[in-house]
Amino acid sequence: MTTARSEPAAAMVVGTGLIGGSIGMALRRRGWRVAGRDADPARSRRALELGALDALGDDPDAALTFIATPAGAVVDEARRVLHPAGRAARSSEPGGIVTDVAGVKGPIVAALAGEARFIGGHPMAGSEQDGVEGADAELFVGSTWALTPSAGTDPDAYARLRGVIASLGANAVAVSAGRHDDLVAVVSHVPHLAAAALMDLAAGAASEDATLLHLAAGGFRDMTRVAAGHPGIWPDVVAENRTGIVATLDRLSSALVEIRRIVAEGDRAALLDLLERAREARISLPTGAPPVAEAAEVRVPVPDRPGTIAEVTTLLGELGVNIYDVEIAHSVEGDRGVLVLVVDAGTVAVVQKALVGRGYRTSARALGR
Amino acid sequence: MTTARSEPAAAMVVGTGLIGGSIGMALRRRGWRVAGRDADPARSRRALELGALDALGDDPDAALTFIATPAGAVVDEARRVLHPAGRAARSSEPGGIVTDVAGVKGPIVAALAGEARFIGGHPMAGSEQDGVEGADAELFVGSTWALTPSAGTDPDAYARLRGVIASLGANAVAVSAGRHDDLVAVVSHVPHLAAAALMDLAAGAASEDATLLHLAAGGFRDMTRVAAGHPGIWPDVVAENRTGIVATLDRLSSALVEIRRIVAEGDRAALLDLLERAREARISLPTGAPPVAEAAEVRVPVPDRPGTIAEVTTLLGELGVNIYDVEIAHSVEGDRGVLVLVVDAGTVAVVQKALVGRGYRTSARALGR
Repeated sequence: MTTARSEPAAAMVVGTGLIGGSIGMALRRRGWRVAGRDADPARSRRALELGALDALGDDPDAALTFIATPAGAVVDEARRVLHPAGRAARSSEPGGIVTDVAGVKGPIVAALAGEARFIGGHPMAGSEQDGVEGADAELFVGSTWALTPSAGTDPDAYARLRGVIASLGANAVAVSAGRHDDLVAVVSHVPHLAAAALMDLAAGAASEDATLLHLAAGGFRDMTRVAAGHPGIWPDVVAENRTGIVATLDRLSSALVEIRRIVAEGDRAALLDLLERAREARISLPTGAPPVAEAAEVRVPVPDRPGTIAEVTTLLGELGVNIYDVEIAHSVEGDRGVLVLVVDAGTVAVVQKALVGRGYRTSARALGR
Repeated sequence: MTTARSEPAAAMVVGTGLIGGSIGMALRRRGWRVAGRDADPARSRRALELGALDALGDDPDAALTFIATPAGAVVDEARRVLHPAGRAARSSEPGGIVTDVAGVKGPIVAALAGEARFIGGHPMAGSEQDGVEGADAELFVGSTWALTPSAGTDPDAYARLRGVIASLGANAVAVSAGRHDDLVAVVSHVPHLAAAALMDLAAGAASEDATLLHLAAGGFRDMTRVAAGHPGIWPDVVAENRTGIVATLDRLSSALVEIRRIVAEGDRAALLDLLERAREARISLPTGAPPVAEAAEVRVPVPDRPGTIAEVTTLLGELGVNIYDVEIAHSVEGDRGVLVLVVDAGTVAVVQKALVGRGYRTSARALGR
């Protein structure tokens, strides 16, 4: 490896969108020299302007290459970097490490199974943000970055990649490609499809009178929010993770069969058991917020006009209260909403007192109850 | 009716929690004299202190009574008010109108089918907020209030109740009890159960290694948020709306069978069709925000520390920009997040310029695309 490295260490980014651009920025901030390209030359030029790259094009001496293209292009690009044309002339060099950022890992890792210097990766950050304009050198700080080493992976290459990922501020989680894909089927792909199914059911049920959708409140809005996204990437995701998605759909269907039984038979104990188990799991989901037992929700009815949220949040800032989460729950069709603030439970009394002093009504509840 | 009314018009509230208390406050602000009681005397005393009631106890002259108890107590309380002991002595008087606020209407409306002066109701407001401390005279402004008149309902009583609901600022939507229950099964009850099922599946799938739940991102958090709620009311809800919930679970199961076929067969056209249909329906959901074609989302990476949200929202307030929706998307485990602001698309340029001027990075996207 050392023979392929120069000073400063050289890296390459193929595909300079949000993730590729952010990787370039993050590496450069940590002293790497980064070359890169994109299928769209305008996009790589923009990445260069924004400071995500030092130079356009390939760097045959790159110690590390991130393939950040759409999933369908990863295998070909990885092979091109692992085995460049003219490589025979430089065959004494071991070549650099190659990784990718695609959201489904099985097919890519299988296609590159013989490549000791390829390690699949999936940074769980910023996926909703599009394009290099949203790129950020600190995008990965505190985020999770899945790595999917396989039996043929060079342990040194894995250790080195893991070290670089950690230097970007991310927590590397090693998981097999199959397990990764099963997990994202459960926490991303099937929930997305279920949200679409629920939204479609509701639209169908209200089709004779669309005003009946006014009966849909905040919980339904939360559950179906992802269904508002553009469907563009989903045919590929579904094709690449077919096995995991089908297996998870089957598990979800079985769970719904059991729930149907619980409802039809009025099995209160089983219902409470399921809901309590789900509640425990949900409040234990890892998050940037404090442990839920210590968090509280303060609800403040507010008018929908400029400055209201600022007034409330400024007041809390002046009090030194950190807001872990903030959300507006809209009255349906109204010109007012409820500002929902998640704060440390220990600060609730001072928050409520201050808000009441400004004429707001408040209510609070512990989130751990 | 007029014989039962006095000046000012007399109303009664049975059950003085969040909804009952808010109704009392709203009626009093509009000139009604409101008597009320609660199964918990401390709660009705507190309602009196907070200005939700003029007096404790029953008012036999009430022109309108709101039964705002838990669902299981509605029928008995309604009968008690409709046919008070000693009523024979006052039989020349028609008696007041009685309505309720329970979330499932079928069993209540069926039990009171012969009562011309009873009309079922369900205000879709504030349901997440507990207790009279959260009561608010303006809680119903701009909200939807379902009314479920039946064949035996006195048309004058219905018209009068509808007028009072409108005077509280709510939009009354008339719907049969059965249709109401079918709809809330689709937009509330089954989504809640599905969220619990998804959360339970994810916890099970990650049971060998809980750190794998770090792979769960914002969409999953949104979808399962309702599963964090206390399960307490659900056995009753499920028992009361059994038919609607079972029918909707069956429809959801059928939809998932079709989705499984689409995934297994790689039917890209059918997948895009479903996702596009769901997306159209989701972005058409009625909301307090502007029409989605005119709204845009601005994302701003921010550190999790006091004052950050205030700085951003204050800046927008100074620019006269209204924030329709605001949310923090947390980096998993990180000490930073992304502030997501929904604003008028026409204000995006000025918002981004101002934020960049303060050293923030921003990205934006139209929500209508």
